[in-house]
Amino acid sequence: MKHISLMGATGSIGTQTLDIIKGHPEDFKLAAMSAGRNIDLARKMIRDFKPELVSVSEKKFADTLKAEFPGITFTYGHNGLIEVAVYPKSDILVNAVLGSVGLDPTLQAIEEKKTIAIANKETLVTAGHLVMEAAKRNGVQLLPVDSEHSAIFQSLQGEKEKNIERLILTASGGSFRDRTRKELENVTVEEALNHPNWSMGAKITIDSATMMNKGLEVIEAHWLFSMEYSKIDVLLHKESIIHSMVEFHDSSVIAQLGTPDMRVPIQYALTYPDRLPLPSATRLNLAEIGKLHFAEMDFGRFRCLQFAYEAGKAGGTMPAVLNAANEAAVAAFLDGKITFLQIEDFIERALNNHDKISNPSLAQIQETDLETRKYVNSLL
Amino acid sequence: MKHISLMGATGSIGTQTLDIIKGHPEDFKLAAMSAGRNIDLARKMIRDFKPELVSVSEKKFADTLKAEFPGITFTYGHNGLIEVAVYPKSDILVNAVLGSVGLDPTLQAIEEKKTIAIANKETLVTAGHLVMEAAKRNGVQLLPVDSEHSAIFQSLQGEKEKNIERLILTASGGSFRDRTRKELENVTVEEALNHPNWSMGAKITIDSATMMNKGLEVIEAHWLFSMEYSKIDVLLHKESIIHSMVEFHDSSVIAQLGTPDMRVPIQYALTYPDRLPLPSATRLNLAEIGKLHFAEMDFGRFRCLQFAYEAGKAGGTMPAVLNAANEAAVAAFLDGKITFLQIEDFIERALNNHDKISNPSLAQIQETDLETRKYVNSLL
Repeated sequence: MKHISLMGATGSIGTQTLDIIKGHPEDFKLAAMSAGRNIDLARKMIRDFKPELVSVSEKKFADTLKAEFPGITFTYGHNGLIEVAVYPKSDILVNAVLGSVGLDPTLQAIEEKKTIAIANKETLVTAGHLVMEAAKRNGVQLLPVDSEHSAIFQSLQGEKEKNIERLILTASGGSFRDRTRKELENVTVEEALNHPNWSMGAKITIDSATMMNKGLEVIEAHWLFSMEYSKIDVLLHKESIIHSMVEFHDSSVIAQLGTPDMRVPIQYALTYPDRLPLPSATRLNLAEIGKLHFAEMDFGRFRCLQFAYEAGKAGGTMPAVLNAANEAAVAAFLDGKITFLQIEDFIERALNNHDKISNPSLAQIQETDLETRKYVNSLL
Repeated sequence: MKHISLMGATGSIGTQTLDIIKGHPEDFKLAAMSAGRNIDLARKMIRDFKPELVSVSEKKFADTLKAEFPGITFTYGHNGLIEVAVYPKSDILVNAVLGSVGLDPTLQAIEEKKTIAIANKETLVTAGHLVMEAAKRNGVQLLPVDSEHSAIFQSLQGEKEKNIERLILTASGGSFRDRTRKELENVTVEEALNHPNWSMGAKITIDSATMMNKGLEVIEAHWLFSMEYSKIDVLLHKESIIHSMVEFHDSSVIAQLGTPDMRVPIQYALTYPDRLPLPSATRLNLAEIGKLHFAEMDFGRFRCLQFAYEAGKAGGTMPAVLNAANEAAVAAFLDGKITFLQIEDFIERALNNHDKISNPSLAQIQETDLETRKYVNSLL
């Protein structure tokens, strides 16, 4: 029986994590969870999963719920998130919050020697050097939840790091994969939110359309698998069936495949190094699919991916700038304040505007994050 | 340094095995080898690799070579093959001979606790129960050399047997994959020998065209991976890029991919559980390939595959009949004595004609083999 702390229970990854826990009551127990502002959904989850500790975004929500569930401990805010992350009974922390809010609690959970199932991109993108150093020092394992990183992680089982030639992250191409740059000029928010393969939150769907999502994944892969950027490739594969691959120096390639279903990598992170049945998943039927397509990534077409490689290679605070500028720009796009192609313009300007700090501390990363958002918002 | 005994050095797998040994002189040494009648090639190999023991098909060849290489021990025939297989200094036996001649030496090498790299299909097809029992009893590992089984073996690294949902063997479809049954009636030997993806010996190329090759692989997979036949599927994949796959019960699929190059699985068997570089192999470039195709196997179109599943499920001596009838029928086809579609007719008649012996001994398998060949030849 593994006890789980879940940060970000009401989000897309959070709800699917609970779906996995529900499917294996003998194997998993939700010990602690955090929710944001969706209190109705949180209430239903508390009723169904009976966690011992719940953190919400604000004190008033905690007070409301406390009255309804007298046997459960409620807390709130940043400290509440940390309490969930380090909850003593938990073996695993599933970090499924959005944005940089997940970083500090994750670092603290690592110090408490919790296994980390990481779905939050910002944690590794902005502070990979801190997270990996802490994980190494504490002998803590970071398990990827993202389908691409899980695919690489699964493909690496039983293999040696020294034999890896390169990692190949596949990219569906997102909502606009068949459009030219010219055709991207006037795309609407609604069009951008219509991802062909995966049903995800708004921010990550836009990130798929700009290819920033893949860029962030490249930086994550760099940290998760200690791989230099020159050994991480991105391949367009529009069906999202091959979730990613590893090429070894004998030219053998190991890949993980499946129908797009986030529950598979989520469950793998929870069951690792074992697997458990997932009967409700749709089995892969390649004969029915008929064809898988592959194409080279066009870095001119997807400038955000280029920015990500450059920020990753530059290191220091540059990935934090990349991430914060992207968050601010995507928010502005979703609010109808800027066009789709302005997202990358704003990111580029933020990167050019920043003076890199090498090997930054957590405080410096957080400061960079705030300053970058301020800068991007000043451009609006 | 691993010392290698190589049975069948002058064949397609044998020469490629030597290519691998040559590429890694620090890691591998050819200790003993067998050759058939291609003495010119054997002579060149002896000069290049300086094995300590060499077995050839006939005494006269052994005598000739003995005069030329005074420091090397020469032997011949069935006993010579066994001497090579059990050569004390060898750690691994690569069984790359054609036909059932490899069975007895392999069983004896297992008793001597040699690791077996198995490229010879007949060994497992006709006597899988004996081989696996002996391997288990002696704690000996059987490493597949066939690209499909190696793909499955590689995909299974770090995984647990209990979590396997099914094995998916891919099949290129062979020389005639785009022809209807009607169009197969008058195909020539030359047409049948023109395999689209792999350059192999004549017998195996015909077996690819009839799909018997895949049928034999299904039976081998049954033994190598202790998998019931209902959990072994065959999928048409004409590019031979995905060499085979494993589906787990969480619906995750792990696959091994690469450009068709037998040296990759051969080298993996020799380096297992490690890998070594293979710089001369052509790297997989999926963007260049562009598309991978998949289609359901048509058991009506490829009757030999159906026969193989049935013979495998029936067990006992039936797979030995399948194999011997196929060898005799393919030989008759290559000799121009029967048509392509008569190959399957002859196999079907041989299977129907045989009274199954359950759990047969080595002697009973060998007798079944001889009787089946006699029966098939009587039909000519």
